[in-house]
Amino acid sequence: MDIKEYMQTVGRQARAASRRLTMATTAEKNAALMHIASAIRREKAALVAANQLDLDAARANGLEPAMLDRLTLSEKGVESMAEGVEQVAKLPDPVGEIRDIKFRPSGIQVGKMRAPLGVIGIIYEARPNVTADAAALCLKSGNAAILRGGSEAINSNRAIAALVQEGLQAAGLPAECVQVINTTDRAAVGELITMREFVDVIVPRGGKGLIARLLAEARVPMIQHLDGNCHVYIETDADPAKALKIVENAKTQRYGTCNTAESLLIDRSIAAAQLPAIAAMLTGKGVELRGCAETCALVPNAVAASDEDYYTEFLAPIISVKVVGGFDEAVAHINQYSSHHSEAIVTQDHSKAMRFLREVDSSSVMINASTRFADGFEYGLGAEIGISTDKIHARGPVGLEGLTSEKWIVLGDGHVRA
Amino acid sequence: MDIKEYMQTVGRQARAASRRLTMATTAEKNAALMHIASAIRREKAALVAANQLDLDAARANGLEPAMLDRLTLSEKGVESMAEGVEQVAKLPDPVGEIRDIKFRPSGIQVGKMRAPLGVIGIIYEARPNVTADAAALCLKSGNAAILRGGSEAINSNRAIAALVQEGLQAAGLPAECVQVINTTDRAAVGELITMREFVDVIVPRGGKGLIARLLAEARVPMIQHLDGNCHVYIETDADPAKALKIVENAKTQRYGTCNTAESLLIDRSIAAAQLPAIAAMLTGKGVELRGCAETCALVPNAVAASDEDYYTEFLAPIISVKVVGGFDEAVAHINQYSSHHSEAIVTQDHSKAMRFLREVDSSSVMINASTRFADGFEYGLGAEIGISTDKIHARGPVGLEGLTSEKWIVLGDGHVRA
Repeated sequence: MDIKEYMQTVGRQARAASRRLTMATTAEKNAALMHIASAIRREKAALVAANQLDLDAARANGLEPAMLDRLTLSEKGVESMAEGVEQVAKLPDPVGEIRDIKFRPSGIQVGKMRAPLGVIGIIYEARPNVTADAAALCLKSGNAAILRGGSEAINSNRAIAALVQEGLQAAGLPAECVQVINTTDRAAVGELITMREFVDVIVPRGGKGLIARLLAEARVPMIQHLDGNCHVYIETDADPAKALKIVENAKTQRYGTCNTAESLLIDRSIAAAQLPAIAAMLTGKGVELRGCAETCALVPNAVAASDEDYYTEFLAPIISVKVVGGFDEAVAHINQYSSHHSEAIVTQDHSKAMRFLREVDSSSVMINASTRFADGFEYGLGAEIGISTDKIHARGPVGLEGLTSEKWIVLGDGHVRA
Repeated sequence: MDIKEYMQTVGRQARAASRRLTMATTAEKNAALMHIASAIRREKAALVAANQLDLDAARANGLEPAMLDRLTLSEKGVESMAEGVEQVAKLPDPVGEIRDIKFRPSGIQVGKMRAPLGVIGIIYEARPNVTADAAALCLKSGNAAILRGGSEAINSNRAIAALVQEGLQAAGLPAECVQVINTTDRAAVGELITMREFVDVIVPRGGKGLIARLLAEARVPMIQHLDGNCHVYIETDADPAKALKIVENAKTQRYGTCNTAESLLIDRSIAAAQLPAIAAMLTGKGVELRGCAETCALVPNAVAASDEDYYTEFLAPIISVKVVGGFDEAVAHINQYSSHHSEAIVTQDHSKAMRFLREVDSSSVMINASTRFADGFEYGLGAEIGISTDKIHARGPVGLEGLTSEKWIVLGDGHVRA
């Protein structure tokens, strides 16, 4: 198989399908989604069996338990996959939305219309449910999708893709609206991220290693999600009860998510009064504290933090802690060490709260709320394709709207420029 | 001079200045802009003299007359430069705009806040007025700017940059908010477009050659402007008088602009009735017609068009013409050959007009209006940094808003995720 030729064919087909999809009605797209959901339910046993092939191979290859866990598609997992697709069908269609039409002095009316991006390449790792999930979001937003899953999930992904294509055709849409790359050859990724003529944007869903590699090689724009080194900053005027509750939730509700707090900043003026109780709560839940000298003096079981610790997304029961000399130092620290994902301030001071929103350069900035809220469902997007830590196009949770852009529309009646 | 080290310094300074600029008030930014405008007016003679050095060198190097024209800064040019900066001061400040704050079932309020992108690199060619223009737009939108003008304008650009920095400092802002790269070494561009840690977006303003080169090498996201191969499509139900007027304006008002029509499509059913008059009007203005066989049969002085002609932005009194078999063929042709800049349909048929808006994949789509309207001033943006033919982030004319993005804000009162 000539990978370049194969990928060019996939790209050309995607481009052609995307032209048709741009014109698809909301009813057609929803019909396809509902067909896909029922096909997935109907083939529950077959999907679990295909997944079993992947699991057997993965075990034989000695994959880590965490990876096996992400790869596993249970009957329950199949059911939630079908439900996820149905939920996307229920979301409002962003395509064709017109806004802000205004008359200009020349007499023309000018405004904006929301349109699909075109062809979206999704590159992801073990989880096979991403295949259905990403296909549904791309389809609803009017984009053709080229999906490249992990090689360890190839059987699961092929089986899901066949059902997605069945649903598309049942609704009268081209099967090529969603294509799964049918080879595990890594060269296919190299082609996908460089064929600008066929692919409008790449959405990587995976670990840091994957994204760093794509970033180095991609010629197609990427909506990237790097790590989530999220901060909670307890300001002098924080309500201590709210602070404790927010740190607990932000750090300990789940350790492996990107919106989990990885670093705690606390003002010097309140550190002695509040840090020991917060540390006791964290220690009680098995969280290791890595702190500055002042932290270690206040919290005997804390260990000394390295500068590297403050840059680290632990994804584990570990938190870095720093006592800071006030608001400006806290914001400067966050802007320096953060991955620009999500940060929260705990304070009752209105001016500080408003300054935090403005001055912290992250995709989500929060007042008196847990960083764990940084999520497409919590924000009301209905679903998310990822969380962008980029600054251009879309920041933070990316839903259907983030998979579209706006073109200008001009309405005249024979108008010409003077 | 070690270019890499120099550019790292410029980048680090820009990043630091951008943190300060994010916090700058509208009053501070406007004060800086007004200072810059008066400094430019005050130094009119010195600016013209600096420009004379560039012009002398350019003539000695045998630059083309068109290039010399773009390079020239007259006293009148200096005055419009100052006025342009004042106009930017009068535009509303996009930074800090908050919208769509809504309560979510969890009790948090979620919305969006507009924020600067951070550091913007502008790469441009001969015109020295871009230095003041781009500096003003970046400053007003809260972004630090790194400006890299053409080497042929280095004396003019240095002189303008000194006045911009004077204005910044007079308003209490760091001079490093706007830096002009002080070397003509091309390696500086290579550094600028790859230092992701210091530069958030690159805006190239220049010809196709420049942009193609940047595109191949850039690691920083680009808001790119490729060529403008714009179409006017005269549909069966067009009003012939409007069609004639729109083609005349779109093609002949100015030949060298990116929103000039380069290609005319006309439905077969009306071609015999309308094309001869349109062709006579164009020929009367000295425009060469390059057409399909049917065009040549109807217009004796038309020459045969090659496939390449339909892809070409002539920027000259030349237009490609094609007789098409109806709406679908016209849209397919445009989506194939266009550079996705701006396209217009002339029609009285409402359904076709609405389909054109939706189905044509270009940054501006127009009904019964001249493509010449695709412009930041005509659209009411007040000013533009360029016209994006990209699909992500910003399409079409890019004003202050296009130099910002939105972050999510979450307002809680001790809320945690369930």
